[in-house]
Amino acid sequence: MIPPLSTPALVVDLDLFDANVDAMNELLQGTGKTVRPHVKTHRTPELAKRQLGQFAVGVTCATVGEAEVMVAAGIHDVLIANEVVDEAKLARIARLAQFANVMIAADDPAPVEALSRAAKRAGVTVGVLLDVDVLLHRCGVVSVPEALALARVIEGAPGVRLDGIMGYEGRVRLHTERRDELIAGAYAFLHKVRDGLVAAGHQVDVVSTAGTSTIREAIADPFVTEVQAGVYALMESELLVMDLPFRCAAAVRGTVISRHPGHFVADVGRRVVGVEYGPPVAVGIEASAVALSDEHATVAIAGTPPALGSQVDFIPGQIRTTFNLHDHVWVSRGGEIVDRWPVSARGASQ
Amino acid sequence: MIPPLSTPALVVDLDLFDANVDAMNELLQGTGKTVRPHVKTHRTPELAKRQLGQFAVGVTCATVGEAEVMVAAGIHDVLIANEVVDEAKLARIARLAQFANVMIAADDPAPVEALSRAAKRAGVTVGVLLDVDVLLHRCGVVSVPEALALARVIEGAPGVRLDGIMGYEGRVRLHTERRDELIAGAYAFLHKVRDGLVAAGHQVDVVSTAGTSTIREAIADPFVTEVQAGVYALMESELLVMDLPFRCAAAVRGTVISRHPGHFVADVGRRVVGVEYGPPVAVGIEASAVALSDEHATVAIAGTPPALGSQVDFIPGQIRTTFNLHDHVWVSRGGEIVDRWPVSARGASQ
Repeated sequence: MIPPLSTPALVVDLDLFDANVDAMNELLQGTGKTVRPHVKTHRTPELAKRQLGQFAVGVTCATVGEAEVMVAAGIHDVLIANEVVDEAKLARIARLAQFANVMIAADDPAPVEALSRAAKRAGVTVGVLLDVDVLLHRCGVVSVPEALALARVIEGAPGVRLDGIMGYEGRVRLHTERRDELIAGAYAFLHKVRDGLVAAGHQVDVVSTAGTSTIREAIADPFVTEVQAGVYALMESELLVMDLPFRCAAAVRGTVISRHPGHFVADVGRRVVGVEYGPPVAVGIEASAVALSDEHATVAIAGTPPALGSQVDFIPGQIRTTFNLHDHVWVSRGGEIVDRWPVSARGASQ
Repeated sequence: MIPPLSTPALVVDLDLFDANVDAMNELLQGTGKTVRPHVKTHRTPELAKRQLGQFAVGVTCATVGEAEVMVAAGIHDVLIANEVVDEAKLARIARLAQFANVMIAADDPAPVEALSRAAKRAGVTVGVLLDVDVLLHRCGVVSVPEALALARVIEGAPGVRLDGIMGYEGRVRLHTERRDELIAGAYAFLHKVRDGLVAAGHQVDVVSTAGTSTIREAIADPFVTEVQAGVYALMESELLVMDLPFRCAAAVRGTVISRHPGHFVADVGRRVVGVEYGPPVAVGIEASAVALSDEHATVAIAGTPPALGSQVDFIPGQIRTTFNLHDHVWVSRGGEIVDRWPVSARGASQ
């Protein structure tokens, strides 16, 4: 018999994970579009590799460190969907391009020129997606002239290659005010930049966008070529209200360490579960509230608390910050723990 | 010349850290009380060891894993200020007691009996602090009869020893409504439990309580013997409004990766800085807002953004979840990076 896991422990239900991956492929079937799973969601190569095949040929990463871990694990096509500007990191990207097809995002000429020098030294070519600020007002160019100026720099620099454009419309949720308008506006601006680049003679092979919450809109859009969704494979409870064929596949397992009339306490706190989108949901418990402190989940209940020492699963609200807190993810099949995989890119934020 | 750190990077200013430790010793001078620094704050043995001496003979830990790391680093007196109930962890505590003086918290007879069996097998004695729910309604006994019943179990079990009581009054901030009343009520209940135990013939050597935000009240209290403060050594910006002699000593250093009129973006997101008490504060920047996403801090400003590639320090609001995101902390002296120490207990939540 397998002894109970020492808690708190991160557990992924591989049956549900695989079903989510299948559901994504079904959504993409016949659309001509691809998915480039964002691996910041789990930072786990063993999970990333299970998402590839069918409509996914590569992954999306947020950091150079994530990309290095994925390439080392045998994934040969990575997009770093983020601005990278310092010389040391650009040199790491050039080295990585000796082993894999690498694209990065850019919104400024200076880092493109620095990347060009690093790529030349390494004898490689690195793809660039021109980052377009479609909604978030974070990174990205904000006008067609700005896009054209940057595209000319990319085309003129040796060792770099303009692969296309990307724009992330953010987590536009089901109940976001003016949701349709926001998404339509984001894609309209992406089209405008694309058309401007094409009219100026640039080739725009890739139009990359969308997270899980806008997957249906991205698929319906005629110009989008790939979606960068990541959460879909593990899901977050707040996205469950949307009409999406994905279910929650990850939980943090805790132990009941204190019980009282009206509440119990489990050893699941903010250092093992991300709480940016609210507290986790206790599975199979009729809880009126779940309050998290550093090491404790205090679960308010009406009935009798579960036995001291028994285990309870908590579904995290924020999946990306949760995986980043764990060195390993335990893997279950049919409710039984069958394996343990390293979250190899945990902490790989540099 | 030392090259700039690859970012995001956690940096502790050791001049400020040492000054905070000195300030705590000055507060305790002549009071007869001790501090037992809570190392969940930083999970870093090199920092913990710098807090010991003068009025600190041991440390407070939140988890068995933290205690193991601290003992392995040469600290010989640890309190695990938390309920531990499962057999495997209790066996680890008994093993640890072969190398160090170990105390744990308890609020239920069952784990005390299990700990007694584990301690007997290991040939050790483990101290127990009877946990009293003074304010948080989380763990802890809630009445004197409950305390007396548990004390009898502890006294009657071989291999365990009743060392005293503890109660944590939570983060009662400066502007918490009815602050004085809440703290006074918490200590009054702690006294009541202590008096009840003493009247029944139990020895109560230790009365352990307080975090940084209630340090002055704990020192003024006649019965408190030690304070479990931890944040004081690194501080959090929200506590700066209090009349405390401590300054912020830790920051997450980021690089400016995108700049625009009205805002810039640094590579400091929720996966490198804890945001439970709000976004971090950008040092030396007149920011009207700092918005955090997974890998980005978007800093709204009125003037010209700092240069692309330049570095900016961000003081975290939540120090404990921040350290737990990093494998190493860089150490500065007089503004220069002089060393790098492992955050050895990062992730040691089991």
